[in-house]
Amino acid sequence: MRDAFHDDLDSISSMLVEMSSRVGRAMGLATTALLEANLQLAEQVISEDSLIDALQHDLDAKALSLLARQQPVAGDLRTIVTSLRMSADIERMGDLAHHIAKVARMRYPSTAVPAELTLTVQEMGNVAQAIIAKVITVIKTRDIAAALQVDKDDDEMDKLHRKLFTTLLEDSWPHGIETAIDMTLIGRYYERCADHAVSVARRVYFMVTGEFAPAKD
Amino acid sequence: MRDAFHDDLDSISSMLVEMSSRVGRAMGLATTALLEANLQLAEQVISEDSLIDALQHDLDAKALSLLARQQPVAGDLRTIVTSLRMSADIERMGDLAHHIAKVARMRYPSTAVPAELTLTVQEMGNVAQAIIAKVITVIKTRDIAAALQVDKDDDEMDKLHRKLFTTLLEDSWPHGIETAIDMTLIGRYYERCADHAVSVARRVYFMVTGEFAPAKD
Repeated sequence: MRDAFHDDLDSISSMLVEMSSRVGRAMGLATTALLEANLQLAEQVISEDSLIDALQHDLDAKALSLLARQQPVAGDLRTIVTSLRMSADIERMGDLAHHIAKVARMRYPSTAVPAELTLTVQEMGNVAQAIIAKVITVIKTRDIAAALQVDKDDDEMDKLHRKLFTTLLEDSWPHGIETAIDMTLIGRYYERCADHAVSVARRVYFMVTGEFAPAKD
Repeated sequence: MRDAFHDDLDSISSMLVEMSSRVGRAMGLATTALLEANLQLAEQVISEDSLIDALQHDLDAKALSLLARQQPVAGDLRTIVTSLRMSADIERMGDLAHHIAKVARMRYPSTAVPAELTLTVQEMGNVAQAIIAKVITVIKTRDIAAALQVDKDDDEMDKLHRKLFTTLLEDSWPHGIETAIDMTLIGRYYERCADHAVSVARRVYFMVTGEFAPAKD
């Protein structure tokens, strides 16, 4: 009986990995769609978001069913409840990729991102994918030192976010208000994605140790 | 034993109400701070956010402890797990009030909101407070019809959000990029607050019925 239970816990962990992998892929595609004004990729990200939502739904149903049937305590209880929270964070990261893809679609056939910001946005997309890849490793390995390292990538994202604002606020900004609004929202979406990734990693820390991860420096 | 358990469930519900009341108050103060460039109010909202976080922490600890000690099933289990999710939404709404207050503080002694948008932002603040008041009623009464009504206030917020963008995008917008960025973010904070309120209300629907609330029209 305990073995079946631990198989179920493993399958929840696999579902978190599967959700995260899909979100990482969505973030990559959304970034390309945005920078290359690729409508087809944008539509793909938009339509595939429902697959991520469906995974969250399945995961949550499984977790609730395990709580009801197995009445776990201590570490097992913590693992299941924390998984529910991680799935909510990851689902939200998927929404943010979806939001980015929608900006790409809205501005098609133009590109939403002006040349001055192409590199910054590309880097934000790269950091988002890198941070998601690390989160996947943290979920798989339950490595709490690696979990705390994810903060560093978030710092990198914050730096890029500030750089984006600096560019928008240069006196020479020639692209007007609409593009500034788009870029403000796009920047926010990437930054929130990284915040949720940090949250997922810190939840793994809590799951493993039963303690909250130490405050960021 | 069961009575003590239901007292504990009631106290979790009271904590959700207490958190929501604080968030509603924070939203009101943050809006005033923003519109009147009131630094003292902004500082109050910023510092009191930690009280909301602490309430969430206490609520979550109580919910986890109940899960471990009482091993509830069916409706009671659903109530506790759903409460954990509601507390996460409400805590996030508090963060958004905190973000609004930080914009007010950053622009002090100027006001962040130009005259053209004062009324729209005031209305967004009013709708945010109204929606939070309704959510409190829904949590207290577990009235599922009222829970679905919260969508209507969210529609009102979406309308105001679009109105804000329309104003920003008028050819005559005289306030430059920095103010447009501020207003884009402010608009997003109010809109996300309403989204989370809808989420809380829909979770009450799920808590009571065991079914997901029907999709919005």
